[in-house]
Amino acid sequence: MSEIVLPEAQVDRDAVAGARIVLIVLDGLGGLPDPVTGLTELETARTPNLDALAAGASLGMLLPVQAGITPGSGPGHLSLFGYDPTRWMIGRGALSALGVGVDLEPGDVAARLNLATFDAGGRVTDRRAGRPDDEEASRVVRRVVEALVRPDGVRITLVHEKEHRVVLLLRGEGLGADLGDTDPLEPGRLPLPVEARSPSSERTAEVVADFLRQAGEILSDEPRANGFLARGWAAYERFPTMEERFGLRSTVIARYPMYRGVARLVGMTVAGVPESDEAALDLLERHWGGHDLYFLHFKDPDSRGHDGDFDGKVRAIEAVDALVPRVTALDPDVVIVTGDHSTPTRLKEHSWHHVPTLLWSAFGRPTADRFGESTCRLGDLGHFHGTDLVPLALAHAGRLVKYGA
Amino acid sequence: MSEIVLPEAQVDRDAVAGARIVLIVLDGLGGLPDPVTGLTELETARTPNLDALAAGASLGMLLPVQAGITPGSGPGHLSLFGYDPTRWMIGRGALSALGVGVDLEPGDVAARLNLATFDAGGRVTDRRAGRPDDEEASRVVRRVVEALVRPDGVRITLVHEKEHRVVLLLRGEGLGADLGDTDPLEPGRLPLPVEARSPSSERTAEVVADFLRQAGEILSDEPRANGFLARGWAAYERFPTMEERFGLRSTVIARYPMYRGVARLVGMTVAGVPESDEAALDLLERHWGGHDLYFLHFKDPDSRGHDGDFDGKVRAIEAVDALVPRVTALDPDVVIVTGDHSTPTRLKEHSWHHVPTLLWSAFGRPTADRFGESTCRLGDLGHFHGTDLVPLALAHAGRLVKYGA
Repeated sequence: MSEIVLPEAQVDRDAVAGARIVLIVLDGLGGLPDPVTGLTELETARTPNLDALAAGASLGMLLPVQAGITPGSGPGHLSLFGYDPTRWMIGRGALSALGVGVDLEPGDVAARLNLATFDAGGRVTDRRAGRPDDEEASRVVRRVVEALVRPDGVRITLVHEKEHRVVLLLRGEGLGADLGDTDPLEPGRLPLPVEARSPSSERTAEVVADFLRQAGEILSDEPRANGFLARGWAAYERFPTMEERFGLRSTVIARYPMYRGVARLVGMTVAGVPESDEAALDLLERHWGGHDLYFLHFKDPDSRGHDGDFDGKVRAIEAVDALVPRVTALDPDVVIVTGDHSTPTRLKEHSWHHVPTLLWSAFGRPTADRFGESTCRLGDLGHFHGTDLVPLALAHAGRLVKYGA
Repeated sequence: MSEIVLPEAQVDRDAVAGARIVLIVLDGLGGLPDPVTGLTELETARTPNLDALAAGASLGMLLPVQAGITPGSGPGHLSLFGYDPTRWMIGRGALSALGVGVDLEPGDVAARLNLATFDAGGRVTDRRAGRPDDEEASRVVRRVVEALVRPDGVRITLVHEKEHRVVLLLRGEGLGADLGDTDPLEPGRLPLPVEARSPSSERTAEVVADFLRQAGEILSDEPRANGFLARGWAAYERFPTMEERFGLRSTVIARYPMYRGVARLVGMTVAGVPESDEAALDLLERHWGGHDLYFLHFKDPDSRGHDGDFDGKVRAIEAVDALVPRVTALDPDVVIVTGDHSTPTRLKEHSWHHVPTLLWSAFGRPTADRFGESTCRLGDLGHFHGTDLVPLALAHAGRLVKYGA
């Protein structure tokens, strides 16, 4: 569970060639077996390309955080990047801010806002404002930005993320992020007051309460998106980068802002914003050779898991499988296929179960010609912690020198 | 290996319904294979009910303390309850005191006494006084209690536990438990002097030496039980309870005092004292619904292991198996079957080997329809630490919220 520490001298920083590691994350990959077939979503999927990788790979079962702990997307990815998620906390707000390209500075406070619908009595009637499209949502956000009366000494930045999702960023002296969420979680209730949970966040609570009040007034004539709910407060702390820690110049290719956000947090550059999963591969091919680690994120398996759509998750996995030959055609040194957590369709939510993982390189110890929970739990890597993945990748890429004489 | 830390917010304390977790401990469950059949005691046993549970469960191999470490009953159980036994030390004395219902206070010092036989020269001739029955032993203990001249400032409590086993409890200011055992371990030797191993325990050593001397004088006319040996010194430190740490209102159903003792240590209530294993199930049924976690302890597999009786241990396991339908009939959310350690009959002692473990719930990842070492070592839980069991049980019972956004 503890933070991995690679002695500085172990990372071979003089290696001439790039490491060419591809980290393919199928969000929410792990699943639970169908009661009739006994096969999970991944085991049900036809994945000839992943199976071919598995046949040359070391397999294992990855534990993202800790036994029994269901990871959010932030902790799940931090673990894959080699950062112990119980040491490196990160709020949704900061992830979202980084994801939409806001450059955070240490001390900045960020939150995730939801556009929401409030009735005349101030009660929340729709926590996502009827899921407005990007055009409507960004128009509403612009109205607030233009009409807002700014407080003294605090710079407020408001950025539309996607659909009902908005990022609030506060910059100034003496801000704190020890604030409660205002989302009452159930419709029909009043939003929770902005509560400072420690004295150092009291000033911030006042600023936020005033901001939310003003936003409600500015948007009072909007039919749906007439106010904000706030959650996921975070003060931004600078992370040591993957290059500083592991000598890995890394880049992210992800369609969704939050995953670019968590990648930027650890110093990855953003290779671009693909419009589709196929376009993600275009970006990989275009940027190939300029970095040591390429992080490709595919969201659909998790989304279909949340929907409880077993067949949909199967198809989402098969769709990623179809893209794998474009990765292997680039002649990478290491290919990792894993997930940031499990999202079993039976649960319709993230879960604590181990994530099937393959690590392909010229130095694998293959045990099966099929990629799935059943083969991974018997694989050469055993059951291992997520933070072991980067050191394993470095080793397989020949980027670690011997420890001790 | 490190103490699990569940952030306070992660335990869902608002869950309305009880978690209904049943923890079935077959003491000393793990074994070694018979040289002829290649099957362990558990694998030899006919266990249709445990096998049926296994067919829907996640299986794994549990490490109670640390690789190579043979746990006593205290550490073995603390690990199962989620308490790192290398952090939470507990002497046999305190366990015994709690087991016989003595309410300990922080600072109390307790020891396990053995009634023993001493010859005229003060040498130990029988370390267990010929294993007196409870009637003889409690009569002898009463003689000491009545005749003892009490020291100033220290309250001495003496409670008969079972057969030759007695608990000594000291309460007062400035006591210490850093004392050596007096048991010479081999008959024919003088008892060891009461040795203070640090200055803070010197006063206590004097009190104990005087107590043992007085007890010998009071009992000098007894034919067998004419003195005490002392071991397992412990100063009682209050443990945070399982309810405080995990939100689990827990209760113990165990025939033997020591297991009730270790359970009380972590805040379990005592559901009652069953006269038989069948009566333990009566108690479970009677108390069903009032708690979140029910700890059922079955001693016989360990006892037969100590006897070196392979077939006897097989039958003891089968006897517990026969009770399992009464557990599942209660419709629990989670059923765990494990041991506090292995007691292979070939060793006639506790051992360091992993303990086969099944965790049944609606969210298992089953891999076999048989419960045994061979199936558990290939199970979905892999090889895991005992302190992971409670977080896993909480997760499977839907009692943990997501970690991070």
